[in-house]
Amino acid sequence: MDIRIRKATADDFKTIWPIFQAIVSAGETYPYATTTTQEQGEQIWMNSPMATYLAEFEGKTLGTYYIKPNQPSRGAHICNCGYMVATEARNLGLATTLCRHSQRVAVESGFLAMQFNLVVSTNTAAVHLWEKLGFAIIGTVPKAFDHARLGLVDAHVMYKQLIADS
Amino acid sequence: MDIRIRKATADDFKTIWPIFQAIVSAGETYPYATTTTQEQGEQIWMNSPMATYLAEFEGKTLGTYYIKPNQPSRGAHICNCGYMVATEARNLGLATTLCRHSQRVAVESGFLAMQFNLVVSTNTAAVHLWEKLGFAIIGTVPKAFDHARLGLVDAHVMYKQLIADS
Repeated sequence: MDIRIRKATADDFKTIWPIFQAIVSAGETYPYATTTTQEQGEQIWMNSPMATYLAEFEGKTLGTYYIKPNQPSRGAHICNCGYMVATEARNLGLATTLCRHSQRVAVESGFLAMQFNLVVSTNTAAVHLWEKLGFAIIGTVPKAFDHARLGLVDAHVMYKQLIADS
Repeated sequence: MDIRIRKATADDFKTIWPIFQAIVSAGETYPYATTTTQEQGEQIWMNSPMATYLAEFEGKTLGTYYIKPNQPSRGAHICNCGYMVATEARNLGLATTLCRHSQRVAVESGFLAMQFNLVVSTNTAAVHLWEKLGFAIIGTVPKAFDHARLGLVDAHVMYKQLIADS
């Protein structure tokens, strides 16, 4: 598959929204409310982050990620990203492709490391994928996520250094 | 000392600002830019949080804290707080008083736990105080804070369960 990853523009959110809504309304991986509107989703995914990217195949949006500093100024050298893949594009390695792309963008943007703040512990596919890509669980917050089916479950803080110590 | 703790109103920020500015401009404990303006400070400390409290003695503001959900909807049962104490009021136990007050407010507001995301590891007085008050270091983010004097130093994620399991 000849997947193209490019920066998303404001106009692209209409193609991202179905992916966002399907994932958020499932309530199993992201903390955003099940009732998040398209306008709120655009604020979360497009406007608040530093940049948003999308992956497309034959003109169809199959995945997306955002990148932003994880903290203000004195903590802004570590970035945070979130990834979403369309249901019909699962198990094709697209999350891997998106995460590797985001790491390159992070380095080019001057970030030294990447941190995920709320990796839901029951989302084992994600936990294993991030570990395979070099992220480590550096902490686990007890019952940090209210899972739609399972109730309160733990969430991991995961971290990867992107630039080697000099 | 008969310290009074009360909810801060918009008009109170002018008495909070000198405390905020002294702490932020030192660049040793909070990530906000040294150059943060009063208007930006008000946005950070008063407008973004769910609520802000101040401690006053004989009409003078000596300390302050904010409280807010640490994550959106499915993670909004854990709160986050930040505390600041005026230089002239250090070592009087005011941070302890503020933190205990914030825990009561958290419980009354329905939060189940409290999380600090960026406790600077070199701020040992704070780390020890939070530990004494029942918080545990549940993770350490390598070089997460750009300390004004020391450069990149580690920061801890700290956590305390407020409501016992039923």
